[in-house]
Amino acid sequence: MLHAVIMAGGSGTRFWPESREARPKQLLRLTGERSMLQSTVDRLSGLIGDERILVVTGRGIAAAVSEQLPQLTPSQILAEPCRRDTAPCIGWAALAVAERDPDATLVVLPSDHVIEPVAEFQRAVEHAVRLIDAEPDRIVTFGIKPTYPAAIYGYIERGATVAGDKAAPASFRAVRFREKPQVETAREYLAAGTFYWNSGIFVWKARTILDALAKQQPAMLEHLQRIVRSSTANDAAAVLEREFTAIRGISIDYAVLEQATNIVVIEAPFTWDDVGSWQAIARLRGTDEQGNTVLGRHVGVNTNGCIVRSNDEHVVVTLGLKDCLVVHTDGATFVANKHDEEAVREVVRQLRERGWTDVL
Amino acid sequence: MLHAVIMAGGSGTRFWPESREARPKQLLRLTGERSMLQSTVDRLSGLIGDERILVVTGRGIAAAVSEQLPQLTPSQILAEPCRRDTAPCIGWAALAVAERDPDATLVVLPSDHVIEPVAEFQRAVEHAVRLIDAEPDRIVTFGIKPTYPAAIYGYIERGATVAGDKAAPASFRAVRFREKPQVETAREYLAAGTFYWNSGIFVWKARTILDALAKQQPAMLEHLQRIVRSSTANDAAAVLEREFTAIRGISIDYAVLEQATNIVVIEAPFTWDDVGSWQAIARLRGTDEQGNTVLGRHVGVNTNGCIVRSNDEHVVVTLGLKDCLVVHTDGATFVANKHDEEAVREVVRQLRERGWTDVL
Repeated sequence: MLHAVIMAGGSGTRFWPESREARPKQLLRLTGERSMLQSTVDRLSGLIGDERILVVTGRGIAAAVSEQLPQLTPSQILAEPCRRDTAPCIGWAALAVAERDPDATLVVLPSDHVIEPVAEFQRAVEHAVRLIDAEPDRIVTFGIKPTYPAAIYGYIERGATVAGDKAAPASFRAVRFREKPQVETAREYLAAGTFYWNSGIFVWKARTILDALAKQQPAMLEHLQRIVRSSTANDAAAVLEREFTAIRGISIDYAVLEQATNIVVIEAPFTWDDVGSWQAIARLRGTDEQGNTVLGRHVGVNTNGCIVRSNDEHVVVTLGLKDCLVVHTDGATFVANKHDEEAVREVVRQLRERGWTDVL
Repeated sequence: MLHAVIMAGGSGTRFWPESREARPKQLLRLTGERSMLQSTVDRLSGLIGDERILVVTGRGIAAAVSEQLPQLTPSQILAEPCRRDTAPCIGWAALAVAERDPDATLVVLPSDHVIEPVAEFQRAVEHAVRLIDAEPDRIVTFGIKPTYPAAIYGYIERGATVAGDKAAPASFRAVRFREKPQVETAREYLAAGTFYWNSGIFVWKARTILDALAKQQPAMLEHLQRIVRSSTANDAAAVLEREFTAIRGISIDYAVLEQATNIVVIEAPFTWDDVGSWQAIARLRGTDEQGNTVLGRHVGVNTNGCIVRSNDEHVVVTLGLKDCLVVHTDGATFVANKHDEEAVREVVRQLRERGWTDVL
């Protein structure tokens, strides 16, 4: 059976102050009426039943995740007591699924990307499942055709075509995974025409992951096994705390993918956006005649190229402003030159330094 | 006896959203720990006893005025039911004082100016009182030596010196009052060296004002007399409402000063600022090393020449911002290019048009 594992542990600062430690990006309603996490679940509708969805998230936001996804039972939300990168997250979910369904196939998905249209996404996942049915130890990834030499994404280099139905999305052997490159290298990748952005979505058998972890990360797997074995015991919380904390954090890329040999990359037939910044919101939401993207109550006089985020209870007024970002939230307002947006990290550092952690 | 009449009816939009209809500029704490109204009262300490101070204000803010000035009794706060410019305001106060003290001398003061030092201000008022003791029908005004060709102030042209104590501030006959001029005219005034800015502060006998009103504005004076005569009657509120509303609004300049002949202008020995804009706040409060003026909680990264106003409960963060004004208040945040500040009127117009009067 096909199961979904949604990774919802992220806690970036890029959307500060809209995003906070207790309200990370995936829980925000920035791209529409539904949060990105909710949209990720919605996107599986008709492909994977709600009862076969697992969400792995951080303990601090598990209640908020549960509130946003009332269709999931508490046992479908795995709450990590601390952050240990993606390998333990995926390993834990794979173990939990394999306990009930040893032959399970998993689609592992980030919870904070925008993917459209849904039908094309589901078609691509179905194709991945067929590729795995044909060769069960395959790892199938989705590659996004790069549109510019991005230095902020990992790349997948494709090799020979993988034979398949003519109507199916193009599939290739993946010959190499590349970490985020320098821009010059990214330019070479783009020119070569054989590189994709790594979307972070994988389809594979739970068994494939667990076998790889047993081989590459045996200690991690033992910790995770103790957690899953005790999950209905009285001391489940204590075991989880102790065992998960003891794990050495590592990404799935380092732990599994770089050693794997049977990887296929499907050229994504869908559009993909990792919504990495407010500028992505402007891209996704579009702009008005003045080049502004506005969410919430706003009056703009002589205002152009701005991104304004407020809410129904608070009005933001801008006057004589160009290419600025204005984000009003309870407790904090951020006003920035749109092109300096990346420096929000420095802002967060200074807030922490001053002890103003109530707004972090 | 010397009495003070403080005019606190103003309701400008220049400090929106810090100033609101229910919280005009004179009630704000923008220049220090005390509001400008409180500072105006403080400035009289030692010169005029609290019991000889009258504040004339609008009905909508009378309670707030009373709260800021607990040393005044309710009868010392005259609440206008509607706005009728400065002549009825001063006339009403003059009548109210003259009832108890027919020979009273009044110093009439705006409530939203910054004047320093207090000792020099008091010395100037004392000199004005001496000038009136010498010639009781005099009207004494205070002229501010202009520092640039301002088109936003009225001017007083001085004539011959008025003889006085050598140590006293220089005094002259006032030969003409000029409305706010064009900049070219203001330049001529500045070059002539015989023009002052009109500070809006006057010292005169209550009788002088009432005689002038009896002659120039007899209908107004009758309305005001009916109000004062009924002030302790059961129908006081109804009489006030009816009679004050019936008055034709006019400024004291048009109603009295332009027809008056015995006016003296004292060259102010104090510094004076009418705090007409946020830029005045920067001028009065000073700027930090980055050229910013900050009131409230703020983190600035690569921020220069900005004026930031927040409070202790809300942090404003600015990043890559130059010469901007950021004012955060409950319900509304204003972000503007500092040089476009005057256009706040257009902002207020648009807010009214949209029906968002809750923030006006």
